[in-house]
Amino acid sequence: MSQTASVRLAADAAVSLTKLQTMAPKVHCLTNDAARGLTANLLLAVGATPSLTRSPEEVADFVASSQALVVNLGTPDGFGDRPADVGIAAAAANRVPWVLDPVMVERSHVRLETAKRFLARNPAVVRGNAGEIGALGLAAEAEGGDGPPTVVALTGAVDVVLGRQPAIRIANGHPWMSRVTALGCGGSALIAAFLAVEADAFAASCQALLVAGVAGEVAAEQARGPGSFAVAFLDVLHALDDDTLTARARVLVETGEIDE
Amino acid sequence: MSQTASVRLAADAAVSLTKLQTMAPKVHCLTNDAARGLTANLLLAVGATPSLTRSPEEVADFVASSQALVVNLGTPDGFGDRPADVGIAAAAANRVPWVLDPVMVERSHVRLETAKRFLARNPAVVRGNAGEIGALGLAAEAEGGDGPPTVVALTGAVDVVLGRQPAIRIANGHPWMSRVTALGCGGSALIAAFLAVEADAFAASCQALLVAGVAGEVAAEQARGPGSFAVAFLDVLHALDDDTLTARARVLVETGEIDE
Amino acid sequence: MSQTASVRLAADAAVSLTKLQTMAPKVHCLTNDAARGLTANLLLAVGATPSLTRSPEEVADFVASSQALVVNLGTPDGFGDRPADVGIAAAAANRVPWVLDPVMVERSHVRLETAKRFLARNPAVVRGNAGEIGALGLAAEAEGGDGPPTVVALTGAVDVVLGRQPAIRIANGHPWMSRVTALGCGGSALIAAFLAVEADAFAASCQALLVAGVAGEVAAEQARGPGSFAVAFLDVLHALDDDTLTARARVLVETGEIDE
Repeated sequence: MSQTASVRLAADAAVSLTKLQTMAPKVHCLTNDAARGLTANLLLAVGATPSLTRSPEEVADFVASSQALVVNLGTPDGFGDRPADVGIAAAAANRVPWVLDPVMVERSHVRLETAKRFLARNPAVVRGNAGEIGALGLAAEAEGGDGPPTVVALTGAVDVVLGRQPAIRIANGHPWMSRVTALGCGGSALIAAFLAVEADAFAASCQALLVAGVAGEVAAEQARGPGSFAVAFLDVLHALDDDTLTARARVLVETGEIDE
Repeated sequence: MSQTASVRLAADAAVSLTKLQTMAPKVHCLTNDAARGLTANLLLAVGATPSLTRSPEEVADFVASSQALVVNLGTPDGFGDRPADVGIAAAAANRVPWVLDPVMVERSHVRLETAKRFLARNPAVVRGNAGEIGALGLAAEAEGGDGPPTVVALTGAVDVVLGRQPAIRIANGHPWMSRVTALGCGGSALIAAFLAVEADAFAASCQALLVAGVAGEVAAEQARGPGSFAVAFLDVLHALDDDTLTARARVLVETGEIDE
Repeated sequence: MSQTASVRLAADAAVSLTKLQTMAPKVHCLTNDAARGLTANLLLAVGATPSLTRSPEEVADFVASSQALVVNLGTPDGFGDRPADVGIAAAAANRVPWVLDPVMVERSHVRLETAKRFLARNPAVVRGNAGEIGALGLAAEAEGGDGPPTVVALTGAVDVVLGRQPAIRIANGHPWMSRVTALGCGGSALIAAFLAVEADAFAASCQALLVAGVAGEVAAEQARGPGSFAVAFLDVLHALDDDTLTARARVLVETGEIDE
């Protein structure tokens, strides 16, 4: 990317948003129950069609007819790892790209082992915060220079997308994004939605995080606190356009400065 | 129904809304986890008292002390079909009317078979969209003229209530209703709430769908996008009155035109 | 407490709110799935860090690294009582204070027995409405004069905190608080959050209920109905300060009148 990285990424993201609204791709979400409602609403807001079943008997059918999958480790239920096992197998068999969200792996040994096992099954993208990505050893690996085996989308005050040279940093967003539960999980689902219309996983990740960050900034200007922020985030996401993305994108290529 | 179908249905719906606020009937919801929060809030907004447990050990107690039940196939959990099996049996034993919501049965063979099995156990109403009702063969059956064995509430841009001659069409609503997860499921729960105060399942279905459609129109005028729409939908539902319903009702009897 | 009970409680609550925002204590929530999203957002709004897993394999790790725990009986899942069993044991082993929320125990015999069993394991606080507290026999016990074995936070139009002489009544709040699902459950989680920064369980309960009640009043003034009320409640909670608490607190000590 060049000096015009912000403008280019904004334009590409806008193209993908239009595709999402016109193609309404199906995105299957194996996500935790606190995140399901918001995740589905985020996907609906950008035009995708979410489905959420975790029943091992059904997951293969749903994934096979989807254009992307997200696997989130949030709150395991009685099905254990089976929904993810079945879903990942169905994704592989049907060439459905998928995103791994290793929620809070730094808090539990069992969960960390599960995440590592899934990581070995070739997600297109891993999306997590610094604690999660660090616990998986992916940040160190990326620092090694050759990049991780999959795209790593590390979200925080500044988001970083790793896995290709140069890495991309996106400085959009708002602190209230960390005061709404499941918005991180929702970011993973947005990446999955973009994967459904953009085959390049690195580009899809950058676009999705730019869209989320810009939507967060605009939403914060309409909101009084984290409650109305979450509501406004959906409104803004639904109507986000090229002009707003271009005007606000703050994309940094690894070697350079923030290019506003 | 006659030319004055809209006015009559609006008046009947307003009577039921008043009964709901004064009688606060208990409505048990065996619904998917993405829908539980919104479903409960929709029921609370119209004055009903929701309960949500799916534990097979508890469901019979809860259903036996409820005035209506909704069975939604959304996202099966580790309990499998047992909550619904127990709940439907308790509903039959206690003459509690119930609504079947065959969510996404067109996406999974297992789910379709489950829905057919439940359908044979005499729900008062089946509520679904065109894909769901079509997969169950209920639309074709209704076209046959004698009507389906239960009332069928087919929701979409225009809602249709089948099961009695003439069928009723309700042209209220707003496109954002399909951009909020679980609002369809919530419609099924609203029908259940109306069944708790209106013994005629056909009438209860028409009233509930009119209320949902008008609430959607009013809410859209207060909202900026699907996020604030969902919030406003609850506000409007809580305060909906006869005048608003009458002014906005657009009810079509099968043989006639839209009667505004 | 004295005539100045309202001013004192408001000041103490404000101190705890500041501690929550600066210390960001971890609060683990074993709560029902309809409540998880709102519960997490309430905790995030006051500055705490919620976690929600119910997987028996993970619960001990999460509780051990938390500063408080809430155990809510809302909607049991396939894990049955194991998450709570494991969580309560981990809380005891690590001296993590915990709150029991006996949701709807008056509706099911199985649930009532479960609640009684957990009650015997020394929660710092039990939070419920009159029906729930009554079914557990805690109200009668409190009327006996010696107070229950744990602090009892009985919420309703006027909240009562029992377990020390004199009992405290808090007359803040708004009727819409009972028209939003899981706001009662959320109150239990708020008490848990306050327990993380205030070792005295009686004081923590009073502070949390005052904060919830005042937030409800302010939110109602910003809202049009129960939908926008729930949103505003989070906004207000996030920004609640000493002045607002002091101006609005309506605290009654058992022997006296409402002290405004």
